[in-house]
Amino acid sequence: MAERTLATLDSSIISRLPSSSQILFHAKTQQNLTFSSLATSLGRSEVAIAALFYGQATAFPEDIKTLSSLLKLEESILKSELEQGFPDRGRAGPMPPTEPLIYRLYEIVQNYGYAYKAVLNEKFGDGIMSAISFSTKVEKEVDEQGTWAVITLRGKWLPFTRF
Amino acid sequence: MAERTLATLDSSIISRLPSSSQILFHAKTQQNLTFSSLATSLGRSEVAIAALFYGQATAFPEDIKTLSSLLKLEESILKSELEQGFPDRGRAGPMPPTEPLIYRLYEIVQNYGYAYKAVLNEKFGDGIMSAISFSTKVEKEVDEQGTWAVITLRGKWLPFTRF
Amino acid sequence: MAERTLATLDSSIISRLPSSSQILFHAKTQQNLTFSSLATSLGRSEVAIAALFYGQATAFPEDIKTLSSLLKLEESILKSELEQGFPDRGRAGPMPPTEPLIYRLYEIVQNYGYAYKAVLNEKFGDGIMSAISFSTKVEKEVDEQGTWAVITLRGKWLPFTRF
Amino acid sequence: MAERTLATLDSSIISRLPSSSQILFHAKTQQNLTFSSLATSLGRSEVAIAALFYGQATAFPEDIKTLSSLLKLEESILKSELEQGFPDRGRAGPMPPTEPLIYRLYEIVQNYGYAYKAVLNEKFGDGIMSAISFSTKVEKEVDEQGTWAVITLRGKWLPFTRF
Amino acid sequence: MAERTLATLDSSIISRLPSSSQILFHAKTQQNLTFSSLATSLGRSEVAIAALFYGQATAFPEDIKTLSSLLKLEESILKSELEQGFPDRGRAGPMPPTEPLIYRLYEIVQNYGYAYKAVLNEKFGDGIMSAISFSTKVEKEVDEQGTWAVITLRGKWLPFTRF
Amino acid sequence: MAERTLATLDSSIISRLPSSSQILFHAKTQQNLTFSSLATSLGRSEVAIAALFYGQATAFPEDIKTLSSLLKLEESILKSELEQGFPDRGRAGPMPPTEPLIYRLYEIVQNYGYAYKAVLNEKFGDGIMSAISFSTKVEKEVDEQGTWAVITLRGKWLPFTRF
Amino acid sequence: MAERTLATLDSSIISRLPSSSQILFHAKTQQNLTFSSLATSLGRSEVAIAALFYGQATAFPEDIKTLSSLLKLEESILKSELEQGFPDRGRAGPMPPTEPLIYRLYEIVQNYGYAYKAVLNEKFGDGIMSAISFSTKVEKEVDEQGTWAVITLRGKWLPFTRF
Amino acid sequence: MAERTLATLDSSIISRLPSSSQILFHAKTQQNLTFSSLATSLGRSEVAIAALFYGQATAFPEDIKTLSSLLKLEESILKSELEQGFPDRGRAGPMPPTEPLIYRLYEIVQNYGYAYKAVLNEKFGDGIMSAISFSTKVEKEVDEQGTWAVITLRGKWLPFTRF
Amino acid sequence: MAERTLATLDSSIISRLPSSSQILFHAKTQQNLTFSSLATSLGRSEVAIAALFYGQATAFPEDIKTLSSLLKLEESILKSELEQGFPDRGRAGPMPPTEPLIYRLYEIVQNYGYAYKAVLNEKFGDGIMSAISFSTKVEKEVDEQGTWAVITLRGKWLPFTRF
Amino acid sequence: MAERTLATLDSSIISRLPSSSQILFHAKTQQNLTFSSLATSLGRSEVAIAALFYGQATAFPEDIKTLSSLLKLEESILKSELEQGFPDRGRAGPMPPTEPLIYRLYEIVQNYGYAYKAVLNEKFGDGIMSAISFSTKVEKEVDEQGTWAVITLRGKWLPFTRF
Repeated sequence: MAERTLATLDSSIISRLPSSSQILFHAKTQQNLTFSSLATSLGRSEVAIAALFYGQATAFPEDIKTLSSLLKLEESILKSELEQGFPDRGRAGPMPPTEPLIYRLYEIVQNYGYAYKAVLNEKFGDGIMSAISFSTKVEKEVDEQGTWAVITLRGKWLPFTRF
Repeated sequence: MAERTLATLDSSIISRLPSSSQILFHAKTQQNLTFSSLATSLGRSEVAIAALFYGQATAFPEDIKTLSSLLKLEESILKSELEQGFPDRGRAGPMPPTEPLIYRLYEIVQNYGYAYKAVLNEKFGDGIMSAISFSTKVEKEVDEQGTWAVITLRGKWLPFTRF
Repeated sequence: MAERTLATLDSSIISRLPSSSQILFHAKTQQNLTFSSLATSLGRSEVAIAALFYGQATAFPEDIKTLSSLLKLEESILKSELEQGFPDRGRAGPMPPTEPLIYRLYEIVQNYGYAYKAVLNEKFGDGIMSAISFSTKVEKEVDEQGTWAVITLRGKWLPFTRF
Repeated sequence: MAERTLATLDSSIISRLPSSSQILFHAKTQQNLTFSSLATSLGRSEVAIAALFYGQATAFPEDIKTLSSLLKLEESILKSELEQGFPDRGRAGPMPPTEPLIYRLYEIVQNYGYAYKAVLNEKFGDGIMSAISFSTKVEKEVDEQGTWAVITLRGKWLPFTRF
Repeated sequence: MAERTLATLDSSIISRLPSSSQILFHAKTQQNLTFSSLATSLGRSEVAIAALFYGQATAFPEDIKTLSSLLKLEESILKSELEQGFPDRGRAGPMPPTEPLIYRLYEIVQNYGYAYKAVLNEKFGDGIMSAISFSTKVEKEVDEQGTWAVITLRGKWLPFTRF
Repeated sequence: MAERTLATLDSSIISRLPSSSQILFHAKTQQNLTFSSLATSLGRSEVAIAALFYGQATAFPEDIKTLSSLLKLEESILKSELEQGFPDRGRAGPMPPTEPLIYRLYEIVQNYGYAYKAVLNEKFGDGIMSAISFSTKVEKEVDEQGTWAVITLRGKWLPFTRF
Repeated sequence: MAERTLATLDSSIISRLPSSSQILFHAKTQQNLTFSSLATSLGRSEVAIAALFYGQATAFPEDIKTLSSLLKLEESILKSELEQGFPDRGRAGPMPPTEPLIYRLYEIVQNYGYAYKAVLNEKFGDGIMSAISFSTKVEKEVDEQGTWAVITLRGKWLPFTRF
Repeated sequence: MAERTLATLDSSIISRLPSSSQILFHAKTQQNLTFSSLATSLGRSEVAIAALFYGQATAFPEDIKTLSSLLKLEESILKSELEQGFPDRGRAGPMPPTEPLIYRLYEIVQNYGYAYKAVLNEKFGDGIMSAISFSTKVEKEVDEQGTWAVITLRGKWLPFTRF
Repeated sequence: MAERTLATLDSSIISRLPSSSQILFHAKTQQNLTFSSLATSLGRSEVAIAALFYGQATAFPEDIKTLSSLLKLEESILKSELEQGFPDRGRAGPMPPTEPLIYRLYEIVQNYGYAYKAVLNEKFGDGIMSAISFSTKVEKEVDEQGTWAVITLRGKWLPFTRF
Repeated sequence: MAERTLATLDSSIISRLPSSSQILFHAKTQQNLTFSSLATSLGRSEVAIAALFYGQATAFPEDIKTLSSLLKLEESILKSELEQGFPDRGRAGPMPPTEPLIYRLYEIVQNYGYAYKAVLNEKFGDGIMSAISFSTKVEKEVDEQGTWAVITLRGKWLPFTRF
């Protein structure tokens, strides 16, 4: 399955995404670019770029210029798609997720939610880990036991205000 | 708020947990032990220990001996609570989570689910990151911008079988 | 991100809104107008104007005239869109909200709902704060701790009738 | 209805709250104290105090001392109830709320959610108003049109990180 | 707001209604007719006529003739739309209703449901008030306290059969 | 079925109601009183009294005195149950209602919701019929076609504020 | 499996039923009576008697006397359980039913619902088959193809009123 | 309402049905045929024919020939619509049904589900009444009390296997 | 983890199971018996025996005798628990399952549901695989790639009746 | 019903599937091929091929070549449809399934879920049967009692990691 290396846009979810998603994914397939190569060029995380493609994150001005050149899309078109407006997040897929890959992440929250809370509370006090002032990345590790995916979530700790 | 450093068991969720949860949390409070100190003694991740307390993970024989000594609980009692049976996972809290800290983790899955899938598929092919052959940890980082929580998820990559 | 100052209409929610929403948002983008400038011209709250654009509030006759001139839309077209009919409210987005910004407001109701009720009941007796005989506004405050959003909700107190 | 000025704890929701809620509400009724008088003594918002009573907020060490004296509860008992553990928020009532007073707040989010988002995005950029680094208060206004409840929500603005 | 006196059909709910709804509402707007004037001409309740427009009630042969003349629609067209088939009721809007006006009616059922049942059972025995052998009307009352809407529901009492 | 004239409290819903409900219903059965006779003595609507019994409405001071005498309950007990606190409404039964009698009322909202909205909007403008500044009653009519239940809903009209 | 001929009450659903259910089922088991024999003695349908046991139907005065004698329960006890109050129907089991036998009935409604509606509308006009003015019975048929259960539903036809 | 005798296809449910449904219903209206007359010609139950029209049942080869001639549809077209593929059942309408006629059937399952189970278990043992090896019919009865709809459900009894 | 070989009953699900479940699981733990050894003695499938313990299957007379002897429980007690009544199936756990092991089975239905249907329809025609006239077993296979669980489902094919 | 041997694609679910589904099913019907014959040619399980057609599984390069030749579809078209992208699984049908055939599989999980867990845990320890490293097949058996469908699920056993 050596050739299958590009994520594309499933037509059945287009109606839940902004119009930019179709344009971006189409150009990415045309240029045969992975999120990894795009991320390297943009100096950002692959997950952020994929989120941008799914309309779940913002393109910054410098991103638009680079994307336009990498994706061979006219900058004016990309600008009109990406420069105005603010992402309407969270509607790309159903919750609970039906997709097995995404469900596993959901299951981690379901099973370890209270455990994370207890550990975070003991380490940081009463508060939350921000999902906004936040970054995430995906890495691959290979050892004698097999191949491992490593996802890192890094968020600012916000204590509850006393008021 | 210097004194508040121990996570305890909210009485309103006891009915959703195995009987061991009450015994373990009570002893932990009595002995004034954090998950961090327990984890160090057991040579395991804090999240795993907290999950064990919430009935979401298994105690291994060596864990029971150590826990018995740390928590000042008779080994025979701990054994009868923890040695037989298998965790009935996933019922500790509601989904979507109403707790703000746990909700933020859920929101990360909701917002970045497809982005993770696209990046993982491009990096690893068609498959999933296992939530079973899996480990996780929580770390604290402090920099000039503030305090950060870092959660690492590490799971074996399982490709879909061709059949 | 200096240029990103205009909220636009995400194409994926158009089917849940009245036809006027598309016309209004399109003209707003064309004229490069913020809700703030529109609100100032109309002498109304920004939130009310945005609600009007999303089909969640009524345009008054004086509003239509002003909007027509600000948005460079023929008054007859605006009239036919906005003068007849009554808003069919509450269907713009899902509940619980998946959008992180809107979810935070939902979370405030979820966490503080009973607290608001207890305080309002003690202050006013048995009744409700009207969401109809109601106004709301958004303000920005900056202090040494950062930037703050301040939302004010002001509703008539309605006591339950004795019957 | 002059006498009815104290919010009490409905026995039918006790099972969803921590054990401290019953103790606190009972003492409050015994001492005939309103949230307003408690808040004044503690130098905090009434809503925060009510949230603390419902197990949705943390008592700070200085609060426990004052509460003990106002509520005529032994400090050691209050300490054991309030000093350890971290609130497990968000489970006090159902969502959508069935209580008319709380529903009105939910309805405001439902009707004006996108309008708030559009106005906040235009004023602050891509981000959210924090519900954690957050305070809120309730005020009463009386004018010739009647009596008004005014709820103020004030949260830190958190921009989405570029990563 | 003197001009706003006509209810129209929100385009976003058309897909949930029969094709006749669009034709009827369009003609009503063209002829500038209220449900009140239509009801008077047809000798029926305004609510019944509005229900007919929303595809929730049947047109009787005598109604079609009169509607055709009032709405300036060819009788043959109206006949083909309204004379065959039977209403597929109950799908016009979501339940619980998100529309504030409709929600208030839902809330009355939610709050007073058991009270109605207790009173009706004591007055009539074990049975129900029919919603089929049923009529309803809306009236306006004005007194010194303000303007009042009065909705009357009148249904046949059906006792449970002993079998 | 001549003897069955008293509504009683089904034990399976007690956990959803305040403690006063059991006391009131028990005394009503002991004294063999209908809601009709209680309402006459109190000068209130039967529905209001039944709602009070189900914890969905407030007892006024004058009501407590009369109820105490009619139900042969010590006034001090009734006072402690009914004088403090505020009803936590809307949780007595499930929605959608499973009880056939209550479901019929729900069905009326489901089928005629938009029709009521259209008629009310045309008669009163953009607003709602209050369910708070509200009264309701149940009447019995008998004619040659059978027995009819007539429910009247009367609520203040509240126009949406222009802000 | 010759001995298994008595339906009993599963203890895990007792909390959803009135207190009479336990008493009736217990006595039925003690007296080793089937619903069939009870129904014959009472001159009613087996389904009605079973529904009465599950608190979904009313006992008539003549039923109480007979039941008392058949079940060897003091008439005064049965009277106090069954003579007052009105069934609070529809909460015995979850919907959709998880029980395979009950699910099959649900599935018939799911699959054939529109077909029944079309056939009934063509046969009777616009209306419903009453589930209140209604009786039902279960019969057993055996032929060369096997054993068949036959359920008959008989309800009064109620046409929608023209109003 | 003498003319209204034909059930037609509500355009708002077409998207949930197979393409054959539109063709069949359209032809039925053109030929002015009731399900009753179709059923007589085909020697099948009216409910089965209506289910076939709604895509909830299979047409047998002999049915296609007869339907083609009755509906004046070319046999080749009918064949291509009805001869291949297998019904994808159960998605024609929402559950719980919002349509009052279909809801009544659902309510019968909700209210009498456990009663049917108890009676069937006592009569037949541990098993279910099949909804697959199953037939059903609708009949009309008229007596001095009015008009009655009688629905018969007849399914094979399947005992649970001992394994 | 050599010692952990016995499945026990999680106390938090007891309220959803019949009273026999506790007795059976307790005795099984006392006698240190696996489902495998019980199944061998009873000549039945392990899954059937486990289902019997969870109240999801029937004990046959011969099973009771053997179970009594294996579990060292008096036959009369077992008889009174298991000989009367019929299982009330399907309520042991939530759906969708939150338990990871059970969720995987649910996911197989979710992902392969239509594929199974297409293959079964092509192989057998229009019908279903019975879950009643049905047996199932679990086997273990070990090969060079690891350890495999093999679940076999075997159900009678039931064709839809032509009626 | 000899002719009905091909599963086709119901047009009402197309919007939930990738565009390849329509192309594949259409060609399969044109070439009159069953999943059985396709599977034999491809050397894979029928269920896997059907899953591939429903967009729930991946085509491997060798599959595309063979499918192209069997389905008489240009290889370049099939490649562009099937070679890029990764299946977005789990959205083909609703859960709980409304289709009777698929529901029976769901019911097996609902009824026997805990039994499978108990047996698997005792046989394999704490872990899950993988649904990813997984294969499945359907077989037909005929004996004197009738025709049987046999579904085999075979998944790798994954023990929970100790971390």
